[in-house]
Amino acid sequence: MILTVTLNAAVDVTYEVDRLVPNSSHPVGALHARAGGKGINVARVLHTLGTPVTVTGLVGGPTGRQLRVDLAESGLRDELVSVDGDTRRTVTVVSREAGDATVFNERGPLIRPDEWADFTVRYRRLLRTAEVVVLSGSLPPGLPPDAYGQLVRAAAEAGCRTILDASGPALLHALDAGPDIVKPNAAELHAVTGEPRPLLAARKLLARGTHAVAASLGPDGLCAVTPEGTWRARPPEQLTGNPTGAGDACVAALARGLTTADDWPTLLREAVALSAAAVLAPLAGAFDPQAHRRFRTAVLVEEVHAPRHQP
Amino acid sequence: MILTVTLNAAVDVTYEVDRLVPNSSHPVGALHARAGGKGINVARVLHTLGTPVTVTGLVGGPTGRQLRVDLAESGLRDELVSVDGDTRRTVTVVSREAGDATVFNERGPLIRPDEWADFTVRYRRLLRTAEVVVLSGSLPPGLPPDAYGQLVRAAAEAGCRTILDASGPALLHALDAGPDIVKPNAAELHAVTGEPRPLLAARKLLARGTHAVAASLGPDGLCAVTPEGTWRARPPEQLTGNPTGAGDACVAALARGLTTADDWPTLLREAVALSAAAVLAPLAGAFDPQAHRRFRTAVLVEEVHAPRHQP
Repeated sequence: MILTVTLNAAVDVTYEVDRLVPNSSHPVGALHARAGGKGINVARVLHTLGTPVTVTGLVGGPTGRQLRVDLAESGLRDELVSVDGDTRRTVTVVSREAGDATVFNERGPLIRPDEWADFTVRYRRLLRTAEVVVLSGSLPPGLPPDAYGQLVRAAAEAGCRTILDASGPALLHALDAGPDIVKPNAAELHAVTGEPRPLLAARKLLARGTHAVAASLGPDGLCAVTPEGTWRARPPEQLTGNPTGAGDACVAALARGLTTADDWPTLLREAVALSAAAVLAPLAGAFDPQAHRRFRTAVLVEEVHAPRHQP
Repeated sequence: MILTVTLNAAVDVTYEVDRLVPNSSHPVGALHARAGGKGINVARVLHTLGTPVTVTGLVGGPTGRQLRVDLAESGLRDELVSVDGDTRRTVTVVSREAGDATVFNERGPLIRPDEWADFTVRYRRLLRTAEVVVLSGSLPPGLPPDAYGQLVRAAAEAGCRTILDASGPALLHALDAGPDIVKPNAAELHAVTGEPRPLLAARKLLARGTHAVAASLGPDGLCAVTPEGTWRARPPEQLTGNPTGAGDACVAALARGLTTADDWPTLLREAVALSAAAVLAPLAGAFDPQAHRRFRTAVLVEEVHAPRHQP
């Protein structure tokens, strides 16, 4: 079973308006709301692929109840832990005329130390039946900065592999716990290392303790820096669509590859194919299954030989 | 007792951001949420003034539950009727740099005919102990366009006076039921009559069946067109602040004046004073009590003699 952890879960709300005009009033047309947060989106992708998956994390308040109702309707196994604070929302205002998206991200509820302790008890119990743990997204207020580090260590003790998709201090404080894979994007990699070149930045993270880095490079695909080698994988064609959720599909593919012990080129081929298929689907957590089948034979993977390894 | 009816109640959410930039992502700073909708704001003002008031209307879903919790914390008497659909939210994005406010108004839940029938039963029961009924705001989807007309007629049969604060078809379809006062603003008056001059537009509404029109003219105060005469009332000074909720404070003052059978100049003086005091308070449903006391002796009321009444 793959366990996905979403500590700052959200109800993702989309508002359709004719045109966004600052400092004016807008009637909202179509409105969509669904359970979100990166870990939940990863779980949706895995569930669609038929991979056994369990959702945990922290939820509370009326928004938390709404999230759980939606999760139940999706058929996802819910092992979320209740907290007193109200789960956050994200509001995305989509403008029909311009086709653009303006996003407002609430910070999330304040988590008390006893609630975090309750969560870690549940988490350790879930680790007994998990093979791979996915840790995704921001930390809500109140959690220790090394929250992900604690969860990575507990997973390693229980014999589980870990994938971490976080940024900033939440990422940095987890590196020395030795996650199996971290998956920043190029901007996050630059921000935490100060190094703009993704391969060099990824090597810096390896030196800090992670076993491997799979960095998403947007339309250019992925690069992986690992003890076994360095690879780049590119999508077979340039795609236009919805980039939201491509990163979550990538993480889902990596998690699945870890359960089947794929080698890195296979892992990356599948991760790029699934990310590209997610770009063609309108919502985070969804992908185009036909495109997925077509892309998995067409992704280009090449090994990168760093200058110091060349003769 | 004054009964306020809010058929399309809302949880009013305020997001503080540094600067609103369309087509980008914004972390939300301070976040406020409270029970809203015009009728609930009117009830808050009356409750603060010590006037017995009861809140009714339609609420449902998780957002409805959140609204009721907030209402209970405010000490307002809750006679809201439950529906299956989820109560709407309004989101106001306040930009710290520009100081402006961008508003997104959800439409509200779809109300079924049996839910509307349930409401009218409760409403008729509440009319037994009400003196004045305030009907405020938009109609949620699914209600008949003459919903306010039905409620005005039922109130008249029960011997209650009515004040209607609505716009567009919801206002037009209620006029022939003979509400005691309708309170459009200048733009709403123009929109429903096609007549840009407020006094002439108000006379058109009188001809359609309402007993009186009190039209809010923003910073210029109020004008009232009634069978007893026509008056204008102006605030004692130009105010800067938050105009949201000034209309609801005006309606609260008019409702209170109807229970004490004030004459029109007294009614208007109080309505302009309370509206002006609401401009000085940060939230709809609140007002500055010191400013209220100061303004009520300083509002200028003058009778307007229309040309055809002059010798």
